[in-house]
Amino acid sequence: MSQEYDLVILGGGTGGYVAAIRAAQLGLKTAIVEKEQLGGTCLHKGCIPSKALLRSAEVYRQTVNAKSFGVEAPEVKLNFSQVQDRKTSIVEQLHNGVKALVKKGKIDVYYGMGRILGPSIFSPMPGTISVEMAGQENEMLLPKNVIIATGSSPRNLNGINVDGQTILSSDHALELEVLPTSIIVVGGGVIGIEWASMLVDFGVKVTVIEYGERILPTEDVEVSNEMEKHLEKRGVEIVKNANILAESIELENGIKISASINGENQSFVAEKLLVAVGRIGNIDGIGLDNTEIECEGNFIKVNEVYQTKEKHIYAIGDVIGGMQLAHIASHEGIAAVEHIANGEKKQIDYTNIARCIYSYPEAASIGLTEEQARGKGINIKVGKFPFKGIGKALVYGDAEGFVKIIADKETNDLIGVHMIGPHVTDLISETALGMLLDATPWEIGQTIHPHPSLSEIIGEAALAVEGKAIHF
Amino acid sequence: MSQEYDLVILGGGTGGYVAAIRAAQLGLKTAIVEKEQLGGTCLHKGCIPSKALLRSAEVYRQTVNAKSFGVEAPEVKLNFSQVQDRKTSIVEQLHNGVKALVKKGKIDVYYGMGRILGPSIFSPMPGTISVEMAGQENEMLLPKNVIIATGSSPRNLNGINVDGQTILSSDHALELEVLPTSIIVVGGGVIGIEWASMLVDFGVKVTVIEYGERILPTEDVEVSNEMEKHLEKRGVEIVKNANILAESIELENGIKISASINGENQSFVAEKLLVAVGRIGNIDGIGLDNTEIECEGNFIKVNEVYQTKEKHIYAIGDVIGGMQLAHIASHEGIAAVEHIANGEKKQIDYTNIARCIYSYPEAASIGLTEEQARGKGINIKVGKFPFKGIGKALVYGDAEGFVKIIADKETNDLIGVHMIGPHVTDLISETALGMLLDATPWEIGQTIHPHPSLSEIIGEAALAVEGKAIHF
Repeated sequence: MSQEYDLVILGGGTGGYVAAIRAAQLGLKTAIVEKEQLGGTCLHKGCIPSKALLRSAEVYRQTVNAKSFGVEAPEVKLNFSQVQDRKTSIVEQLHNGVKALVKKGKIDVYYGMGRILGPSIFSPMPGTISVEMAGQENEMLLPKNVIIATGSSPRNLNGINVDGQTILSSDHALELEVLPTSIIVVGGGVIGIEWASMLVDFGVKVTVIEYGERILPTEDVEVSNEMEKHLEKRGVEIVKNANILAESIELENGIKISASINGENQSFVAEKLLVAVGRIGNIDGIGLDNTEIECEGNFIKVNEVYQTKEKHIYAIGDVIGGMQLAHIASHEGIAAVEHIANGEKKQIDYTNIARCIYSYPEAASIGLTEEQARGKGINIKVGKFPFKGIGKALVYGDAEGFVKIIADKETNDLIGVHMIGPHVTDLISETALGMLLDATPWEIGQTIHPHPSLSEIIGEAALAVEGKAIHF
Repeated sequence: MSQEYDLVILGGGTGGYVAAIRAAQLGLKTAIVEKEQLGGTCLHKGCIPSKALLRSAEVYRQTVNAKSFGVEAPEVKLNFSQVQDRKTSIVEQLHNGVKALVKKGKIDVYYGMGRILGPSIFSPMPGTISVEMAGQENEMLLPKNVIIATGSSPRNLNGINVDGQTILSSDHALELEVLPTSIIVVGGGVIGIEWASMLVDFGVKVTVIEYGERILPTEDVEVSNEMEKHLEKRGVEIVKNANILAESIELENGIKISASINGENQSFVAEKLLVAVGRIGNIDGIGLDNTEIECEGNFIKVNEVYQTKEKHIYAIGDVIGGMQLAHIASHEGIAAVEHIANGEKKQIDYTNIARCIYSYPEAASIGLTEEQARGKGINIKVGKFPFKGIGKALVYGDAEGFVKIIADKETNDLIGVHMIGPHVTDLISETALGMLLDATPWEIGQTIHPHPSLSEIIGEAALAVEGKAIHF
């Protein structure tokens, strides 16, 4: 038996299921092939469970520090299994929500491994999907169009054997039943820093080992420095310029790892090690060999409307590389579907995508860093405002960090916004709208931000671009 | 001795000191006359201290509920004197900040009661300022221009004797040394609801008595209803359509007050009573009789650039009435100063001012309510999205409430935004920028909001205006 569809999506993660819902809204007969669970990495192994753990870390930290607010809680204890149960229950609740949305959209879901077949008697073009379902005969789907949204998996470091026991990927770390007393986090990027912040809040001794010369290498230097200062103050050891010497790993009731730091070898010991060195596209086993689809490294190559070399097969989300963010995946999915449904060419402006780090402190940014802008030869002007000048930040009890706005001196265009401090992962959206609408810093400064609110910092930083901040 | 100035500002509150800083930036020789402390009501008796208490209430509530996050704190106790100390210390820190900013701007400050004098040998026009300073000779200031920014004071209810002991204004409530076991809050507007929410969080038995048919009468009906439901669930008794019978007040170890509710008398007993029925302009004792300045009730009348009948005397902030918000006062102050300095006519669009309520849950709004828009005969379309559809709200542990966006069906203009739920007093600013830039709901929906973030709800509500929300 084979089923015909307007669209079959390989992968029901944030890219795939959102694309499917938009396809259903546009009247396309749509199916998703999902090898594990709807919601994908973001819901089950990424954004949501990690943020749930981070939220418990925040509540724990705030509860321990409640005294400064006039709240006495003398015997605070972390119940880590309850922390994990809460995480699981949130994931389950959202998982049910996604399943309900997909059902409401009358989208068929095939649970199994989907593989693209080559040309056959069913179809002169590659694109028939064979779904391998455990213990059942393969299902054959005949789609007019395909979207590959198979996502990504944690990257391994050469020679380090991620065993899920002592050496963990983020997938394993999310399922820890007991907290280790100490951990080495290899990789000081977004994922590594979120874990470092969470674990140190939970009382774990944390060492971050970063290959580059600073943590958060894709962020503005000042944000990196502020984050490093903050983490070190809370007890995180941060080692930079460190080249892991893979062969030196030993296991004996924990792990010992060596690294060459500026040419000198140094070793580090901890109960566990977390490898957080990025993610690679899931391109294996999905039948790319049966097609003309091209890859670059572990990522599928697409054109500006997310078509692969096979024009009726699109690819979106983590599997095409780039920033690998859930909100990018879903917007790429929507763009691909709108191209399929009515030829609309929706251009996503990748310079206008907010990037968030949910550590304590939070960080968020959009557009170019100061260094990148100068590197492109843009004549820039910069406004910066500290949270300590914002009344609501003092009231909130967290007034470290700053907002920095970079504009083009000649055109007045917003070029970049960089934030570190309380709630910045929410505050960044105002500037995303501003960039979409080509707002100038002056217009953002003219916007009346309510007092007292954390959002006042955006108005002040925007005014600071012209030297007109009030509270500085 | 008399001192000459380009500008003298009566009142160093949020309106006055911000105006003074902008005046200094523009090169005007400026003085402030302040009868109490720089920072005014907002800093000393309003926004800041009340938000500091609300923040402690939030921390207390979260600490008591920490168990659901996997954090065990079995013996939580409120230390109210520490709550008050924290509030005082935040106010002091910000007060020092304001004093430093004013000093940095080389703005002279005269502490005393400023009174406008009529025409005299010094000046053919009224406007000389006599400053009455305790134990000193009056200081005479000769300004070219004056800004009256004397603010407002709590309104009394006829026949209720606010004694500061049993019957309190918000000024007194802020200074409570011991929490009462029970309180009657007369007035279900913004101030009354913030106090009700804070006090019930602190464990006080709260009764809100509202004259109108709903609490928060200036907000969208759905926001009022959601707030009422939430407060009642937490134990606040809310009595509506209640006409206080002032003569029936009795004092005996507390207070008994009667009200006529839909024609039937009912009495209420509590340890304290808080009168929160609005604020009146501070127009007494500042010499208005010596000028042509006109008032309407307790508020000074001004034209569109904040000039009174005396063209060189401006008035801004609470003393001119309107919404009486700190951020309005400061922007009016800036507008008045820019008109004084260079004749610039800066129009504040009062339909584009965010209004915030810092209770739990928070509420925030901008523009017209649904009822107001329909009342004006506008053909509207409405998008609404619940926080329970937002992953980050579930992660945060607070997924009640919603965002509602109202647009003009014909022009696509944003007309109103109404929010109730977590962090909405920060989230509202994105829509303030959107309104300033004439964004359509579709443009807000196209803005890529980071996932997972609370701000996603704005994108979804905006898409819902066109029936295109993804997660609903």
